[in-house]
Amino acid sequence: MRIAELSRLSGVPAPTIKYYVRESLLPPGERTSRNQAQYGERHVTRLRLIRALLEVGGLSVAAVRDVVAALDSPATGTHKVLGAAQQTVTAVRVGGSHDEPEHLEAVAEIRDLIERQGWKVSEHSPALTAAADVLGALRQLGQDDFADQLDAYARAADAVAATDLEIVRERGDADAMAEAVILGNILGDALLAALRRLAQIHRSAELFE
Amino acid sequence: MRIAELSRLSGVPAPTIKYYVRESLLPPGERTSRNQAQYGERHVTRLRLIRALLEVGGLSVAAVRDVVAALDSPATGTHKVLGAAQQTVTAVRVGGSHDEPEHLEAVAEIRDLIERQGWKVSEHSPALTAAADVLGALRQLGQDDFADQLDAYARAADAVAATDLEIVRERGDADAMAEAVILGNILGDALLAALRRLAQIHRSAELFE
Repeated sequence: MRIAELSRLSGVPAPTIKYYVRESLLPPGERTSRNQAQYGERHVTRLRLIRALLEVGGLSVAAVRDVVAALDSPATGTHKVLGAAQQTVTAVRVGGSHDEPEHLEAVAEIRDLIERQGWKVSEHSPALTAAADVLGALRQLGQDDFADQLDAYARAADAVAATDLEIVRERGDADAMAEAVILGNILGDALLAALRRLAQIHRSAELFE
Repeated sequence: MRIAELSRLSGVPAPTIKYYVRESLLPPGERTSRNQAQYGERHVTRLRLIRALLEVGGLSVAAVRDVVAALDSPATGTHKVLGAAQQTVTAVRVGGSHDEPEHLEAVAEIRDLIERQGWKVSEHSPALTAAADVLGALRQLGQDDFADQLDAYARAADAVAATDLEIVRERGDADAMAEAVILGNILGDALLAALRRLAQIHRSAELFE
């Protein structure tokens, strides 16, 4: 298809498509003459991913370039691609120095949790640091009763992850899988937060009304 | 205790404490002379709640006043107080008009889900609107495979809510319960997001490595 058709299908204006090609986010079309190029189905899915990363994920153009570079590297297996996609949507709250004893204690607590759950996760995962940051904040605010329920929350998170990965696996195509990881985490976090509150309302009424 | 001791125990500077009293966030101490007042344990827990609302929750002084007014109203039962606390931390994403057919469809879908789960929740709950907003965004972005897994996500959210409410119930004191709802939702959402990603890494490795 020509750029006009790609623009229509994807909802992305032609000048923006050309900008993405210049910035190496989108592979160029196949040149058919000096002023024309042909685009394929792959450009449509890639544009959807780029829009998701930029608009829903709030990523910079440079960060999107890193994600698509990982996607396009022939040496990269699916697990690594999904990891790269996930890292773009893993917020690491930087509350104080990461050398403080409180933070190191929280990291050790999360490591123990990971071991108890039987999860195999790298020591350097940003998700581990993110979990330790929140745990440290809970302990610092005197919310030890929450911190003590880590295992219950981890079991629920694992059930969510099982559903997530089932969806990712069913997609098959690498771009669509990365898209599922990114949108599923960003929008999925918001969805879970809302469903959690609905369930809380129900359970609070049962207990206290 | 005098204001200096209250300041030391709570970590809140005395002028700030006086400001909270003027703004009706904190009840005044008991006057013992023209220039002195006595504060009790209740002021310590209330100050912790106020700090949590302002600093972790990012609420305005006016919003904090609404929460503590609900807490202090003798007519308000625990369920209503928890509901008021929860509403302060329920983000409603406003994506387009709420009269659009797409939004109304998403609302109907969430209502069906609530019924299937056997949850008793008001039609006007902000959490219902929030869930519908995210569901609408997922459908609009073509992520129907996520939207189709609503029940699996709802079951995980319910397991989280069961743990949440157990913690809240154990606290007993109304201020501490409201604090648990607010901090537990804000920090708990971040904790769940991080644990979900750790579990994803594990499950991705199992599937694709």
